[in-house]
Amino acid sequence: IRSLATATRKSLTIGLIPADGIGKEVIPAARTAIEAVGSDIPTPKFIDLAAGFETFARTGVALPEETVDILYNDCDCALFGSVSSPSKKVVGYSSPIVALRKKLDLYANIRPVLSVSPIPGEPSKVDMVVVRENTECLYVKQEQQTIGEHGKEARATRLITERASTRIGRMAFELALARPRKHLTVIHKSNVLSVTDGLFRESVRAIPASDPRFEAVTVAEQLVDSAVYRLFREPQIYDVMVAPNLYGDILSYLGVVPSVNAGDNFIMGEPVHGSAPDIFGQGIANPVASIRSAALMLRHLGYTQAADRIDNAVDSVLREGQLLTPTLGEVRRPRR
Amino acid sequence: IRSLATATRKSLTIGLIPADGIGKEVIPAARTAIEAVGSDIPTPKFIDLAAGFETFARTGVALPEETVDILYNDCDCALFGSVSSPSKKVVGYSSPIVALRKKLDLYANIRPVLSVSPIPGEPSKVDMVVVRENTECLYVKQEQQTIGEHGKEARATRLITERASTRIGRMAFELALARPRKHLTVIHKSNVLSVTDGLFRESVRAIPASDPRFEAVTVAEQLVDSAVYRLFREPQIYDVMVAPNLYGDILSYLGVVPSVNAGDNFIMGEPVHGSAPDIFGQGIANPVASIRSAALMLRHLGYTQAADRIDNAVDSVLREGQLLTPTLGEVRRPRR
Ligand SMILES: CC(C)[C@H](C(=O)O)[C@@H](O)C(=O)O
Ligand SMILES: CC(C)[C@H](C(=O)O)[C@@H](O)C(=O)O
Repeated sequence: IRSLATATRKSLTIGLIPADGIGKEVIPAARTAIEAVGSDIPTPKFIDLAAGFETFARTGVALPEETVDILYNDCDCALFGSVSSPSKKVVGYSSPIVALRKKLDLYANIRPVLSVSPIPGEPSKVDMVVVRENTECLYVKQEQQTIGEHGKEARATRLITERASTRIGRMAFELALARPRKHLTVIHKSNVLSVTDGLFRESVRAIPASDPRFEAVTVAEQLVDSAVYRLFREPQIYDVMVAPNLYGDILSYLGVVPSVNAGDNFIMGEPVHGSAPDIFGQGIANPVASIRSAALMLRHLGYTQAADRIDNAVDSVLREGQLLTPTLGEVRRPRR
Repeated sequence: IRSLATATRKSLTIGLIPADGIGKEVIPAARTAIEAVGSDIPTPKFIDLAAGFETFARTGVALPEETVDILYNDCDCALFGSVSSPSKKVVGYSSPIVALRKKLDLYANIRPVLSVSPIPGEPSKVDMVVVRENTECLYVKQEQQTIGEHGKEARATRLITERASTRIGRMAFELALARPRKHLTVIHKSNVLSVTDGLFRESVRAIPASDPRFEAVTVAEQLVDSAVYRLFREPQIYDVMVAPNLYGDILSYLGVVPSVNAGDNFIMGEPVHGSAPDIFGQGIANPVASIRSAALMLRHLGYTQAADRIDNAVDSVLREGQLLTPTLGEVRRPRR
């Protein structure tokens, strides 16, 4: 991955978009973690920005233009919380996170999954990363409803392009190349979707031919249905997985894990979990995914030391096992 | 579910389509199980039928017309094995199982998941069923490839109709109503696909209004990404799940589990696993899913005693723990 860091950066402006539900609890926790790293990064400046279903309910707009403008013009990076989905269809509402990814061309969603070993320094049993294409597939949201002979009929378009598949594929190869196992699994369902998933698969597999560095990476493929099963049953078999948008969404919902939405010029951290309105306000939301998303964001900006500092702090809290939130059943709880 | 059984049926003709790989090992095992149930069913007659990638490689056709005709005209039911997918795009090849479901209008794929308790008579910890829509969604296979400004572009259509969503929804409500917990979870991703998944969700939720019997069923909904996660982490929370085709495919790939493809007039058993070409011919394929698919098929035909007999036999083999195939790590292995 191209590092977005400049050694000469004097200030670091971070947009904070807590959005809905527990997003409003976990993003402040991530902010605190960033403030605590001290001189490893330029003094951070935070800008609070609005988006989400609550913003929509208040103003009629889920993603205010101002939010996008400020991110684009004034911020070096951002942290996004989580959005609530309406429980009924709401006219005019559309997910702000999907729109943000597109507007800032954050074409890769990178979701590392690492188990914390109870013994410091011991390698993680699970150490893999899901690289999810972030701009197309069914997420282009081209949908229509018509009335047919037997009632309503709805159609959505699934778009897969050579260009987007190639750039996400390159990102995945770069990541795989930088890892000890250098293994990449291409996820698709081309036994059913031979044209669209066929194009995704071919585009990714064609990459090493034009960049011989990538010949060092072993490439495998797997159908999405069996990949999900094996991922839950034996996650340790995977190193890097690359997938079209929707499969990547399903594959990477792995509990309290962090992610970054990455483009060539901007990076936005985002915990993978939802807004959990049922536990909002009780102070029991688990901030680990958000704090780790902040670390991941700093890492992608080139602030490796700051990122390590945050990750190590989280690891030792988890190893301690004293400060666990109720949802911590969801990360591998260290045995004592 | 409408029972397809007639008390007066004098013979039972079963089409056998082993197809590829271990399908050719597990379908004969299922046949043997059916032959062993004796007088609980009319004397079965078996007809061997061709389909699959190997058939395609030999004849140029993956699903011979003869196979469909004989199933349609001469068989009461059928058992399907598993198909291999070509490792590269093969012009003219298209999955015979997807085609068969459509041609015989087997609109429901019913996949029960039941853990075997080590103590006979003790209730199963996991006892749930995935009801998957079997005819539309991305499985309509309407795909095109064009050349755009930046290279190849491929598009697929995802079709969701009120009619198909309502009939699969009714099937799911019937199943839920007949079960002790009477709980139904509707799976969708309407936070992104508000029109197509919105229609699926609304169609299913509208059913009790026109059939007050179903008011006894508690209905919940869940986004597919978090549903997959929870299904693997805490499967015991689910009773009946109903899902559009692709989500149902991913949700129900749960190892060595059985399924039936059901329409109003025909039923076809099918193990959920793949053709596992890597282990074919070694005699180590696990026939449990196929044997249970045969039981499920007989159950849907109204032969409850015969089905119980097969299931009980499988349960005791699993409890015995003597005759386990290598892949039996995949079903809950009883602790001794
Ligand atoms: C909230 C939703 C639109 C989003 C997605 O589907 O991408 C979420 O599930 C995620 O994974 O970030
Ligand atoms: C073989 C494949 C076309 C099929 C499907 O996707 O339906 C299989 O995965 C299944 O679940 O029966």
